[in-house]
Amino acid sequence: MTLGRIKRFFLGEPLSNQMAESARIPKWKALALMSSDALSSTAYATEEILIPLAALSALAVSWSMPVAGAIALLLIIITISYRQTIRAYPGGGSAYVVAKENLGQGAGLVAGAALLIDYTLTVAVSVAAGVANIDSAIPMLQGHRELFSAIVILLIMVVHLRGKHDAGALLVLPTYFFIGSFLLLLGSGTMNLLNGRAVPVAPILHETYPEIPLFLLLRSFASGCAALSGVESIANSVTSFQEPRTKNAKTTLLWMATILAVFFVGLSLLAHVYGIMPQADETVISQLARAVFGKTGLYYLFQGFTALILFTAANTAFEGFPRLCSMLARDRYLPRQLASVGDRLVFSNGIMGLSFLAIFLIVLFEGNVHRLIPLYAVGVFLSFTLSQAGMLRHHWQDREPGWIRALLIHGFGAITTLVVLAVIAATKFSHGAWMVIAVMPFIVLLFTRIHAHYLSVGRELSLDGVTPSRQLHKVKHTVIIPISGIHRGVIEALRYAISISDDVRACYVELDPGATDRIRSEWTRWAHDIPFVVLKSPFRSVVRPMLEYIDDVAECCHDEVVTVIIPEFVTSKWRYSLLHNQTAFLIRAALLFKRNRVVTSVRYHLKA
Amino acid sequence: MTLGRIKRFFLGEPLSNQMAESARIPKWKALALMSSDALSSTAYATEEILIPLAALSALAVSWSMPVAGAIALLLIIITISYRQTIRAYPGGGSAYVVAKENLGQGAGLVAGAALLIDYTLTVAVSVAAGVANIDSAIPMLQGHRELFSAIVILLIMVVHLRGKHDAGALLVLPTYFFIGSFLLLLGSGTMNLLNGRAVPVAPILHETYPEIPLFLLLRSFASGCAALSGVESIANSVTSFQEPRTKNAKTTLLWMATILAVFFVGLSLLAHVYGIMPQADETVISQLARAVFGKTGLYYLFQGFTALILFTAANTAFEGFPRLCSMLARDRYLPRQLASVGDRLVFSNGIMGLSFLAIFLIVLFEGNVHRLIPLYAVGVFLSFTLSQAGMLRHHWQDREPGWIRALLIHGFGAITTLVVLAVIAATKFSHGAWMVIAVMPFIVLLFTRIHAHYLSVGRELSLDGVTPSRQLHKVKHTVIIPISGIHRGVIEALRYAISISDDVRACYVELDPGATDRIRSEWTRWAHDIPFVVLKSPFRSVVRPMLEYIDDVAECCHDEVVTVIIPEFVTSKWRYSLLHNQTAFLIRAALLFKRNRVVTSVRYHLKA
Repeated sequence: MTLGRIKRFFLGEPLSNQMAESARIPKWKALALMSSDALSSTAYATEEILIPLAALSALAVSWSMPVAGAIALLLIIITISYRQTIRAYPGGGSAYVVAKENLGQGAGLVAGAALLIDYTLTVAVSVAAGVANIDSAIPMLQGHRELFSAIVILLIMVVHLRGKHDAGALLVLPTYFFIGSFLLLLGSGTMNLLNGRAVPVAPILHETYPEIPLFLLLRSFASGCAALSGVESIANSVTSFQEPRTKNAKTTLLWMATILAVFFVGLSLLAHVYGIMPQADETVISQLARAVFGKTGLYYLFQGFTALILFTAANTAFEGFPRLCSMLARDRYLPRQLASVGDRLVFSNGIMGLSFLAIFLIVLFEGNVHRLIPLYAVGVFLSFTLSQAGMLRHHWQDREPGWIRALLIHGFGAITTLVVLAVIAATKFSHGAWMVIAVMPFIVLLFTRIHAHYLSVGRELSLDGVTPSRQLHKVKHTVIIPISGIHRGVIEALRYAISISDDVRACYVELDPGATDRIRSEWTRWAHDIPFVVLKSPFRSVVRPMLEYIDDVAECCHDEVVTVIIPEFVTSKWRYSLLHNQTAFLIRAALLFKRNRVVTSVRYHLKA
Repeated sequence: MTLGRIKRFFLGEPLSNQMAESARIPKWKALALMSSDALSSTAYATEEILIPLAALSALAVSWSMPVAGAIALLLIIITISYRQTIRAYPGGGSAYVVAKENLGQGAGLVAGAALLIDYTLTVAVSVAAGVANIDSAIPMLQGHRELFSAIVILLIMVVHLRGKHDAGALLVLPTYFFIGSFLLLLGSGTMNLLNGRAVPVAPILHETYPEIPLFLLLRSFASGCAALSGVESIANSVTSFQEPRTKNAKTTLLWMATILAVFFVGLSLLAHVYGIMPQADETVISQLARAVFGKTGLYYLFQGFTALILFTAANTAFEGFPRLCSMLARDRYLPRQLASVGDRLVFSNGIMGLSFLAIFLIVLFEGNVHRLIPLYAVGVFLSFTLSQAGMLRHHWQDREPGWIRALLIHGFGAITTLVVLAVIAATKFSHGAWMVIAVMPFIVLLFTRIHAHYLSVGRELSLDGVTPSRQLHKVKHTVIIPISGIHRGVIEALRYAISISDDVRACYVELDPGATDRIRSEWTRWAHDIPFVVLKSPFRSVVRPMLEYIDDVAECCHDEVVTVIIPEFVTSKWRYSLLHNQTAFLIRAALLFKRNRVVTSVRYHLKA
């Protein structure tokens, strides 16, 4: 089959189960694969803090450092919490699992919905931010953001459809490139200040801060919280680590949080000291890199690596989204086919769904990161909060050794993230958070409707309470073959028909009474032992007399099933099929919703 | 079935064959039904003559009367010819039939293509002209021509899908309304001139005519030839007349031609004498009616009747187009389903195709009659010419009594229409006639390709030369049922399977080795007498191991056919079906083009 070959060309050979077993990864690789989302958010988080402040006044921007400090503190709280979660859920502590198991189905579904939204926004925001950083370096490219972003997403989609194995090797480098170049930026930036090559525009900490509205300060904080997205991904993927899994995952999380904290605070600090203000057509990180490196090759390289890690960040979502869909599908909250793993098309339905949703969002928001961010943070912190609350309940019920410490950690974490969630929802509501809040109930409703359907189908199909008979009983059935003439295709269909039943009847709808005798005499020549029934059609309809005859036969013969065998043609070229099989199609459609009718096509392969 | 009821609500009860027999119509009714196309063209033909002349100068317009006279002469020639055709082809002398029988397949197909194009343009031009006349009376409506035209076409389509019987009664009135009101216009217009209430702007015939380019004069003539479209329709429909058919048809044609000549010449004359010039937002006929009647109720009534007969004119095409398609389909030049007459959906495929093509043309040409006309005339005169040439050949070969007279008539007719065709093609080429000339070969090519396919299928399926065996042999076949679990649906499918073959195997693709033992033990409980085959799936694909197993079975058992029975679900609501049957769909798709595989769905009807 040609389609198969095309699929294999783009997606590679299928992976066996054994290969999946051996795909457990070491810490250094896990760090690269799982922290691209978190680390890459440094590329836009500082800018998001600055935008609301700069909108008020140039002075207000001095608040950026305290805000960044608060977010760093929040990162520490969340990291400590998730290290606890890793220990308690070595099987993967996704917010969906944690909330479902400890807080019940409802909370689980809300967490699931929040996570699905997050994954989609991770792709949209990361790719849009990556494109923005390329734009900043090469202004010539500006103006085609949406198109550029869509192409990037489609490329990532194809890479990802090739499966985890290939993707892994490919996606380790960008994270380390980024870490290296970012360290260079922070180092050079600091050196420049120390050796006087750059003059600080503002002090690190101000003695007095201008009075600004609290709401604005909170909005700045809420925007900056985008830096924390992706922190949970290591906790979700504990199963991917080499043994000892838990320990390795905890260590990797700590590394990741440390790097993130240093990068985020360091960048915010340098941006502040260098006096950088957000601008429409150049990102803050690009401005800073330009100030530190000048317009050298190093600057372009830095921008390239930044864009690269942002694109790579979408990887976390491309891993997580289909896996979450699969979990939801196995719990019967999503269509069953999302649960299945076919060929290398690992969760391919989920992967493609995610790509198209992300492209839709990018087109809707014109590829503008700043407009996408408000949608992002709500979901992130909703899932944080539910996860923390679930863990709180978990430790309260289990009371395993160290439970009091865990209770304190998660209690504090839950309260903190809940407060942050409230702040985000309140300060970003009108900027887009309302959309997420409005869509969430519909997603949860969809989950529950699907679930209810599967449950009721399960009940209906269940054999519980039925005693098996010693032997299965055969079905009493008659075969009817509609024919319009006698040719090789009909002969094949007749041979099949007499093979599956002793009661076979051919029926012929008489549209032109002149032709009937000729066909009847041909019939006796070719198939004299099969009854030939002529149906009158006063209204010149082919299908209706046929249906009535089928009903009559079912009734007269006390049939459990009537099989209608339709001789069909398979033409050599698809377009020729439009010239055949119209009546077959009509009969099939008419019988589709009738009980106890089986429609079987016996296909004759034409050379023509 | 709900669909059936909806169809019946819009389209009425089906017509029986007997009703069709009794639907032969008297002359007065035939005149109304078959001449609306020809008569209604008076509503735009005069204007078409004036436009090229007026574009040169106001003086040039004086040529309109000679041009109209020439067209009237042409009408006489064509009418005499077609009266001959009616006598020779009492079964309906469509240009397609006449050309095919006398000039061969090629000429027939060209005529067929020309006629299909004409029918489409009749609908587009008539409806656009009708809308233009309503616009003229009620300027408020201007600016929505395309939308208005599309709605009218869709309404006519629905009326027509209800079948000939109803449509007939409904469509007689507009023709007589129009004839009455047109006579009133001509009468009043003349009276006004005679009793001095209107002052003639120009004499009927000028003593000297200004010199104008011959090309322009010919273009004016070519444009005016639109008046002759529809003259052939009576000759096409001889079978619809009451006996004596031929005589009645000839008489009706004579009446029609007389009325058309009087109306066309009369209108051109009055328009000339009243000094009316073509204008963008008011039709010539509307200007004249306003000049004669004033802005009275009579004027509005006249405009209404004009629009009405134009809309009715589309009727001729709605009759002719599907009938021609049916002829072409019976000769295997178009898909077979166009030949069939199902329920009251008489030729419904053709009717809907025509409607959408006409709407497409109207949208393409912005509902502008003047831009559509050049496309129109080429096809009309091409079919006239082929028809005349065919009749010429017919009489030359048959030499029945009166053949020399007939030869002279058709010879003169053929030469005249050929010359006119050349004039039209030359003078209107750049105005749009080129499109028709360009499209025609493609239509003819399509016809021949379809024909070749049907012929080769016929040869392939033919049983000629095959000797029937005394008895049909049964097919050796195995039944395979893919299962993923055991439930009521599977039990039903198994019962069906053992009824159609003694060799039934269930096969189960193992994705989760843990579940296999449980299912196997359930299996022995419910269906211990049917082999249960477990297929390993190293690549986690469900479909591939299944296909390989099916191939293996076919080979091992020396099967002629392998039947794959798939248990499927029919859900209570369509949208739920998205939650089921995905694997069934994949297996079906994979086996679609394989030989000797029959795929049968045994459907279990869910309440859920």
